[in-house]
Amino acid sequence: MSILNIPLIMQDTAAIEGDMGMLWMLISGILVFFMQAGFFLVESGMTDSKNAVNIAMKNFLDIAVGSLAFWFIGYSLMYGADAGGGFFHWGGFIFSQGAADLFFQTVFAATAATIVSGAIAGRTKYTTYAIFSLILTAFIYPIAGGWEWNGGWLNNTDGIMPAEFIDFAGSSIVHSVGGWAALVAAWMVGPRIGKFLNGQPIEMHGHNQMYATLGVFILWLGWFGFNGGSQLAWGGDDATGASQVVLVTNLAAAAGALSGLFLTWFKNGKPNLSMTLNGALAGLVSITAGCGNMTEGGAVLAGLIGGILVVYSIGFVEKTLKIDDAVGAISVHGVAGAWGTLVIGLWGVDGDTGIGLFNGGGAAQLGAQAIGVVAYAVWAIALSFIFLYIMKKTLGLRVSEKEEIAGLDWSEHGSIAYPGKRQREIEE
Amino acid sequence: MSILNIPLIMQDTAAIEGDMGMLWMLISGILVFFMQAGFFLVESGMTDSKNAVNIAMKNFLDIAVGSLAFWFIGYSLMYGADAGGGFFHWGGFIFSQGAADLFFQTVFAATAATIVSGAIAGRTKYTTYAIFSLILTAFIYPIAGGWEWNGGWLNNTDGIMPAEFIDFAGSSIVHSVGGWAALVAAWMVGPRIGKFLNGQPIEMHGHNQMYATLGVFILWLGWFGFNGGSQLAWGGDDATGASQVVLVTNLAAAAGALSGLFLTWFKNGKPNLSMTLNGALAGLVSITAGCGNMTEGGAVLAGLIGGILVVYSIGFVEKTLKIDDAVGAISVHGVAGAWGTLVIGLWGVDGDTGIGLFNGGGAAQLGAQAIGVVAYAVWAIALSFIFLYIMKKTLGLRVSEKEEIAGLDWSEHGSIAYPGKRQREIEE
Amino acid sequence: MSILNIPLIMQDTAAIEGDMGMLWMLISGILVFFMQAGFFLVESGMTDSKNAVNIAMKNFLDIAVGSLAFWFIGYSLMYGADAGGGFFHWGGFIFSQGAADLFFQTVFAATAATIVSGAIAGRTKYTTYAIFSLILTAFIYPIAGGWEWNGGWLNNTDGIMPAEFIDFAGSSIVHSVGGWAALVAAWMVGPRIGKFLNGQPIEMHGHNQMYATLGVFILWLGWFGFNGGSQLAWGGDDATGASQVVLVTNLAAAAGALSGLFLTWFKNGKPNLSMTLNGALAGLVSITAGCGNMTEGGAVLAGLIGGILVVYSIGFVEKTLKIDDAVGAISVHGVAGAWGTLVIGLWGVDGDTGIGLFNGGGAAQLGAQAIGVVAYAVWAIALSFIFLYIMKKTLGLRVSEKEEIAGLDWSEHGSIAYPGKRQREIEE
Repeated sequence: MSILNIPLIMQDTAAIEGDMGMLWMLISGILVFFMQAGFFLVESGMTDSKNAVNIAMKNFLDIAVGSLAFWFIGYSLMYGADAGGGFFHWGGFIFSQGAADLFFQTVFAATAATIVSGAIAGRTKYTTYAIFSLILTAFIYPIAGGWEWNGGWLNNTDGIMPAEFIDFAGSSIVHSVGGWAALVAAWMVGPRIGKFLNGQPIEMHGHNQMYATLGVFILWLGWFGFNGGSQLAWGGDDATGASQVVLVTNLAAAAGALSGLFLTWFKNGKPNLSMTLNGALAGLVSITAGCGNMTEGGAVLAGLIGGILVVYSIGFVEKTLKIDDAVGAISVHGVAGAWGTLVIGLWGVDGDTGIGLFNGGGAAQLGAQAIGVVAYAVWAIALSFIFLYIMKKTLGLRVSEKEEIAGLDWSEHGSIAYPGKRQREIEE
Repeated sequence: MSILNIPLIMQDTAAIEGDMGMLWMLISGILVFFMQAGFFLVESGMTDSKNAVNIAMKNFLDIAVGSLAFWFIGYSLMYGADAGGGFFHWGGFIFSQGAADLFFQTVFAATAATIVSGAIAGRTKYTTYAIFSLILTAFIYPIAGGWEWNGGWLNNTDGIMPAEFIDFAGSSIVHSVGGWAALVAAWMVGPRIGKFLNGQPIEMHGHNQMYATLGVFILWLGWFGFNGGSQLAWGGDDATGASQVVLVTNLAAAAGALSGLFLTWFKNGKPNLSMTLNGALAGLVSITAGCGNMTEGGAVLAGLIGGILVVYSIGFVEKTLKIDDAVGAISVHGVAGAWGTLVIGLWGVDGDTGIGLFNGGGAAQLGAQAIGVVAYAVWAIALSFIFLYIMKKTLGLRVSEKEEIAGLDWSEHGSIAYPGKRQREIEE
Repeated sequence: MSILNIPLIMQDTAAIEGDMGMLWMLISGILVFFMQAGFFLVESGMTDSKNAVNIAMKNFLDIAVGSLAFWFIGYSLMYGADAGGGFFHWGGFIFSQGAADLFFQTVFAATAATIVSGAIAGRTKYTTYAIFSLILTAFIYPIAGGWEWNGGWLNNTDGIMPAEFIDFAGSSIVHSVGGWAALVAAWMVGPRIGKFLNGQPIEMHGHNQMYATLGVFILWLGWFGFNGGSQLAWGGDDATGASQVVLVTNLAAAAGALSGLFLTWFKNGKPNLSMTLNGALAGLVSITAGCGNMTEGGAVLAGLIGGILVVYSIGFVEKTLKIDDAVGAISVHGVAGAWGTLVIGLWGVDGDTGIGLFNGGGAAQLGAQAIGVVAYAVWAIALSFIFLYIMKKTLGLRVSEKEEIAGLDWSEHGSIAYPGKRQREIEE
């Protein structure tokens, strides 16, 4: 055998592993796409039926505008060449590093926008939402994503970072960015009419808990692609690695669901569905950053704590901050996203080596994680504030009181979710 | 290294690529199967609740009868040996070229039948539908499919074709055939009671826009398998090719959704959900033929125009043709299917070479595409007419007026979609 | 070429096939996970809306408790080393043979528990269900699973077995075990109030047949992973084998749906949706054991008979046994599961060789299948009886009459499925 043949054989193996990686990313991207349906069902189920069409229309905006905007400019701002100290990147319009990666990153981007939608449901102008969704997908999210996933300033220790920031699938980059943008938006748009009485929050029931439940199952399903696909490869260590990611993702979701379930059982005497749903989602968000750097037991613990945090956080946002977050998005994505990022610094691992404060890794990783959490929070809050403030002073953020009471479906879209008899009555 | 070893290594690579291709086709087929759930939700959501059980029953017929009929005879008529000038094929009963391919082609066949179901919802006899669904899946669709996908007369330039007809995943073969059959059926069955008043169409609301929305998300999801799986292989150029197919499929769907959304916003002052849904579907149908022969920008444009066409076509079918198509199937599948086929002749590409009229490819491809469009239209319309006419004169196509008003659920199936209290009242 | 290189090349091929197998198992596991959503929709759709939240809460228990319990102890009891004559296995707590396999087996375990949930819907205490779900997933199911899938006493002819028991994907191991546990539970919990009047069963309608239909589509989808993934590998014969499994799974489901549809059409004059749904599920259960040992025609026949059996079995359970099985779980999973196991002994094949009584294989395989059916029935019934009896005498199995009439959603969870106006009325 001549030495010339060895590269040929190895090239074949590498090519095949590349093809398998592409297959896994494509399938994962397809699963992540389906999360839009999950978000739609959770959000519409947890809010009033008079705003359900509007929520469907927002989800179509997110995926449709998001797909085109991220293809045209967002991917380039995220994965182009360094254009400013690891803070900005640019590769020209319609930049691409391959269709499978572009598709996978596109459906991620659409997710970030959707998170905001839930928090401000029921009172926000459709035009305003459309523009903000575009800004988030095309600018706010991709620029910040490049800091970490394109080897930017968070991803190396050349600058201030005590260690490389770790966010495997986006607890901070996707979920916290969406969650903090939702915080600013929900605060600036203001609460739905009737949400607060004498400063006390009133529970505003959703209209269909079956939708919300189905939606969470779809999100949990899609998350296997969200986290697992973030391995970005398949074959050898990547195959076992991605499988382990899916396994710990499921364990953390299970733990989060149970902590939501049992905590409400303990607190209120009855196990509560919507907190079980939010607990499962919080468990998923809590493992999204660390799914490649967490033992199985560590993942369970991260999810358990995430499920508890979300219950208290939802109360805090409503009762203390007096902010009306219609579906708990700030808590599920913002708070659990920050928690999922930090926990790597507490008991994360790198292979068999502890890198957290509690397992012998010192404080460097925790410091790096904290810097990342703060950086993404500051960025998302500042940029959202600027753009929303401009829109508030120009277009306005909110529909009129009359339109809100009639419901956004009728006032913004001239339609209702369950037409049948009722629509005929309205029209007559 | 002896020369004998080279084939061994290459054989391994080829075998593995074959295995990867089979994996991708199987997964794609599973996604296409799920489109039945999407069609069910779209169709039942967009029509009256008194016919929702009937729609579920039609979908089960489509997949159940379709799976058995296509396995027993349809696949053979489509992929058997040439049995008549590239017009007919035959391979014996229960012919197969491998389980993965047979499964993938089966779920495609079931899709064609389902398209008809939507157009004639709310007044068609179940028996009649059952027989027509069988005929479509076992004869009309597979014979016509062989013209192109089994190297038939459309797929080569031996006969009248100025160029090989291109229909990658079936804009014409699946969607137009279904759409034109739907046109004949909807016309011959006649409109639902109350659809036209003094010759003017009356809007007949669906009963649940949430179902319709979820259904479109499921269809969009399944379409990644529908188009992507039509690569029929994975590995090397096929892996990048199939990934590109998925990417442009998503872009065209996004563009179609946006043109439906913004066109209705512009026309009516309010962005309309059902036209956004139909726009997304039209975008998907518009890229189905050309997903392997379209630049990304070309795909966006094809989808945008598809989304516009569908809005005007739905109006034309109702107002000018006076045909009652309960869900817009003729426009979404027939018209957008023809458009998606023709657009390859306008700005399609073959790799880096333009093959369309507007990008230096001359008129040959456009001519070939037009011949294919006409051939499939003539075939589907003629065969549907013959079979439906025979049934009209024998079994009858329509339920009685009394049954229609009571709803097909009760009259044809003795049940209703949402039993609860109401069913008890009916029974008492 | 030195001989040393051959192992290298072959090792590469084997490694790649291993990676492909892992990919297929992971994707299959993700599909099986989604079956939880299908079970949730079928069960809630087929029962009263006042118990729908409770059903969602039970499904979350199944997957959440199941995931943690199977990870911590169940997998070890199923796939650990032989610890007692092929009856018991143990590998220590948190035992694993790889993340992809552990994940795949976990979602299987969660399925078994869910089957019981449907039968006892509408009157069972949540606490009791929670404990029984844990016991089933952590002990009853995995111990019995090891008998066959870990080379236990049913899987070899060292002991009493006339041939190796065959249960490819779990007609007996998963479905019958769940179905017989459901039988004991439904009998011991007793019927819902109003189910029997003077000893005659009264039909208790579900509340949403659309959910039930969507649920069956999701289950059918997930079953491709359930059966196909049970190949546990991909590449070469495993690729064609798993594809064949998916194909025959689809054929059997189609046949089962049609026999349910036509049998009720013939019996009652009208084709019935809920029996079509149950027929499809019965077809799927009927092919689950034999999907690797059945010709395509044999699979169609197995599914057809499964769909017929389920119709008569549901009547038998209600009218003769006087047991209230709210969704037909005993018949769909228990009876069709036993049938699917036995049919291998009637016309099963091993490659091209007949192993059934009717195709020249003699009675040995039928004997082996019968022993397996009986063994799993005895085990599931005995263990379920013991645990449920203990709970009956301690915690109690049933809610109070008042709570049952109010609905479990309100009495057990303080919430209702469709809040809107009605919840506000209840609270005032």
